[in-house]
Amino acid sequence: MNQKQKLMLAKAAMEASKNAYHPVTRTAAGAALMTREGSVYTGCNVQSVISGLGCCAERCAIYNAVAHGAYNYKAIAVYFPTKNGAKPCGACLQLISEFAQVAKTDIRILMVNNEGRIIAESTVNKMLPGAYGPRTAGKKLAAYEKNRD
Amino acid sequence: MNQKQKLMLAKAAMEASKNAYHPVTRTAAGAALMTREGSVYTGCNVQSVISGLGCCAERCAIYNAVAHGAYNYKAIAVYFPTKNGAKPCGACLQLISEFAQVAKTDIRILMVNNEGRIIAESTVNKMLPGAYGPRTAGKKLAAYEKNRD
Amino acid sequence: MNQKQKLMLAKAAMEASKNAYHPVTRTAAGAALMTREGSVYTGCNVQSVISGLGCCAERCAIYNAVAHGAYNYKAIAVYFPTKNGAKPCGACLQLISEFAQVAKTDIRILMVNNEGRIIAESTVNKMLPGAYGPRTAGKKLAAYEKNRD
Amino acid sequence: MNQKQKLMLAKAAMEASKNAYHPVTRTAAGAALMTREGSVYTGCNVQSVISGLGCCAERCAIYNAVAHGAYNYKAIAVYFPTKNGAKPCGACLQLISEFAQVAKTDIRILMVNNEGRIIAESTVNKMLPGAYGPRTAGKKLAAYEKNRD
Repeated sequence: MNQKQKLMLAKAAMEASKNAYHPVTRTAAGAALMTREGSVYTGCNVQSVISGLGCCAERCAIYNAVAHGAYNYKAIAVYFPTKNGAKPCGACLQLISEFAQVAKTDIRILMVNNEGRIIAESTVNKMLPGAYGPRTAGKKLAAYEKNRD
Repeated sequence: MNQKQKLMLAKAAMEASKNAYHPVTRTAAGAALMTREGSVYTGCNVQSVISGLGCCAERCAIYNAVAHGAYNYKAIAVYFPTKNGAKPCGACLQLISEFAQVAKTDIRILMVNNEGRIIAESTVNKMLPGAYGPRTAGKKLAAYEKNRD
Repeated sequence: MNQKQKLMLAKAAMEASKNAYHPVTRTAAGAALMTREGSVYTGCNVQSVISGLGCCAERCAIYNAVAHGAYNYKAIAVYFPTKNGAKPCGACLQLISEFAQVAKTDIRILMVNNEGRIIAESTVNKMLPGAYGPRTAGKKLAAYEKNRD
Repeated sequence: MNQKQKLMLAKAAMEASKNAYHPVTRTAAGAALMTREGSVYTGCNVQSVISGLGCCAERCAIYNAVAHGAYNYKAIAVYFPTKNGAKPCGACLQLISEFAQVAKTDIRILMVNNEGRIIAESTVNKMLPGAYGPRTAGKKLAAYEKNRD
């Protein structure tokens, strides 16, 4: 993944945040997910007034990608509107990690701050090492090892 | 909403189910959401090996629509691969109902069976009457009363 | 279920709300669940700053009961701190409904307002009729047809 | 926390798993949470047939503790029925981490295998460093800085 792709993905995450539905906290987050082949799917946070409903930007981006037949990702950019940005929450790391198992790969995570700058980089396997996932659980995943989008 | 639109939406829900990620139960569901202006966003079920993660097709379709700036919907078709299809689960009805409050409208629900036929129709306000939502909770929603997609 | 039991359950739900963890909205809800044999388990809302995490009082009460080996319920009281109280959200109705399938029974729902009065009564099968659940999905449930608490 | 307490907590987690409601995968997990003062609350996994519902043992234990007025924890033991046990999932680490912020402390995590042995130990701040939580989000938490149970 080259620098140009990273900057493009960071920008897409920032743009996606503009559509966030956040009547509870007024905090707009965005995410942009890049597939192995370079397609991009975005998500923003969607808040519910009910505990346990609603969804973070990162998980929404994955749900959007899956709906289009994309299960194998190389990177996700996460925009959070503060000077230091934010890491994905544990629930998002868990779901990203499950798809890292699906694709038998690691997934790069770019943290993007309120100015749209990439202020930190890591990978899901560094941020949530040894996570339980579909391969740990012995699930059959052959059907998801190629993107269809 | 005319018959042609309904059939188109039912077909889109069935098509969306083909991308479902369902390593846990092997049951593929799909949903297609129509905005007030007639745009269509789809979703499929995405299963996690972790309780409380993953998402039904209907909620995924909403998250996808919101990511594109669409908050006001007139109908959702729900495909489930059995002879009698299935109603949206309570969690999905809750989220659909919250967006019915956002748009100050009711939202039609089309249940689609394994052959792609609409076998039942209702609305979210009939299926989950009097639900708690963002207006009940006194949230400000003016920013979401128009679609931007 | 007699009137005395109902009043006791309503009071337990109101009491449980006092422990609610609600740093996001400052709204304290409570629930009290009665098993077939008359044991009571309580829950309160637990809010997370993350969308999709945290839990409503009703689901917490069920998780608490299950942890003690109770899977078969006859009633749940739901306290909400407004004049008109509130119905359980769709996600809670869904989970209550799944345990109604487990026990092959209906489950009574008592709605309790800010003064601790039962202002409405219904059942989960009336509030979420025809819900998808573990029996619809063909799961084996014999192990859960008796309470062990 | 001394060795005797650790062994007691590990045993409580294993015991709790016996009540797990797991019609979907037949995998029984358990958790036992110890408060600052030494009280213990347990949880087991509760599975739903619906994606995004149900709950892991660790989160259930927290919901149970909160229902009893306990918000400050020093350790959680996690039983998973395999030779190597399992780490808490990302969603559970996130919630544990939020309560570490509430109590301004770290929380020890004991991983317990199928024989009831503690096979690994860590803390939530090591396993999910720098997590977003209620203090990061600027929430007022004074009401939760003491246990009331």
